[in-house]
Amino acid sequence: MICLGLDCAGRTAAAALMQEDTLLFECTLNLGLTHSETALPLVEGALRAAGLTAAGVGLWAVCAGPGSFTGLRIGLAAVKGLAFAANTPCAPVSTLEALAACHTGEGTVVSVLDARRGEVYWAGFALPGPRRLTPDRAGPIEELGDFLKTCKKPAFFVGDGARLCYNRFGAGHGLLPCPPALGQSRAAGLCLAGLAMYRAGLAVPPAELMPRYLRLSQAERERAARLAAQG
Amino acid sequence: MICLGLDCAGRTAAAALMQEDTLLFECTLNLGLTHSETALPLVEGALRAAGLTAAGVGLWAVCAGPGSFTGLRIGLAAVKGLAFAANTPCAPVSTLEALAACHTGEGTVVSVLDARRGEVYWAGFALPGPRRLTPDRAGPIEELGDFLKTCKKPAFFVGDGARLCYNRFGAGHGLLPCPPALGQSRAAGLCLAGLAMYRAGLAVPPAELMPRYLRLSQAERERAARLAAQG
Repeated sequence: MICLGLDCAGRTAAAALMQEDTLLFECTLNLGLTHSETALPLVEGALRAAGLTAAGVGLWAVCAGPGSFTGLRIGLAAVKGLAFAANTPCAPVSTLEALAACHTGEGTVVSVLDARRGEVYWAGFALPGPRRLTPDRAGPIEELGDFLKTCKKPAFFVGDGARLCYNRFGAGHGLLPCPPALGQSRAAGLCLAGLAMYRAGLAVPPAELMPRYLRLSQAERERAARLAAQG
Repeated sequence: MICLGLDCAGRTAAAALMQEDTLLFECTLNLGLTHSETALPLVEGALRAAGLTAAGVGLWAVCAGPGSFTGLRIGLAAVKGLAFAANTPCAPVSTLEALAACHTGEGTVVSVLDARRGEVYWAGFALPGPRRLTPDRAGPIEELGDFLKTCKKPAFFVGDGARLCYNRFGAGHGLLPCPPALGQSRAAGLCLAGLAMYRAGLAVPPAELMPRYLRLSQAERERAARLAAQG
């Protein structure tokens, strides 16, 4: 079975094709282009390189969140549309789990995304695996401190919030460095995590794909604040 | 400085662009196409995506061997030609070191390529790093046994010879599994290893790029056997 993964959750746009345990194609763009310009050409490029059409895809994997509100909607809408014709199963993968699935070794990988406003989205995973240790969370970076005290070492940070964490918690004491280029998101990890969801019976029909934002959007936060102020 | 990496050493063709420690672009093709068809379009696609020309590249990284005799010549000749106009520095990276540079964690990564005829190309590297523990070697797979007994654990295998090694040495006893998709070569690792060579003063002018085959080619082996038989 061929899995096509599309990641538009963060700054990077990426697509990959996996057939069983073999990576056939992967492309990652981290050039500041908008996902609305890059997402569909990435999918088209992947299919064309492999001589496939959307009908040849057996599973669509897509980052369902957390991440950029607009990016998540672009990725989910694209996959929902592409999978709809044949009602192909879809795996709505946690962005944090897709990041963790790019890593091997032994210990703990902590996936961290910069959520702005002094907060991060984060989750911890045991390696090899990855086996989830915490749910996806949104909160101040200090929240990670307790987890880091108790998790199995060595541990390292990946994701676009990794630099914040290394600045806050340093390296040493069982915290390993991770070269930034290796901590960036890859659609290969998304496919691996998506295939694991599929095997666990957690894939859904395209109509059921939904974003998981973890936090209210800016518009919703401002509306709630306005309503609260009005008493 | 922008580094462009081109890998044609094995079954996979891959290109990446790195700027300092950030991966800007990466594309990997593992679709059974010949490198003579894919290498230059991969480079062109990387440059075009980033709005660059060859003149904007500050370092060319290329797999110099071990690997496929034809693939190495295609990659080296392409980079030699592209770097020649501006005499841009080139990093002739060990294919085994480029594989190891894709991995983080703690322990030992053993890069292994299937050299056919019952042999492998291999080298061991300490993580985090990677810090080289052995030179690149060509020999029967059994040679790895002694290294595995003494190297720091956990250890895992990457490269297209990884499956041979897991079949021969099993997993457990400090040997970790590595999902095959994560053990495939990536041009991001090539760029990381190439930039490390550059910083260590080991880059060369394009005219000095040479393949490192580790073994005689089939034609040379057969000629040597013929000469020996003639006494």
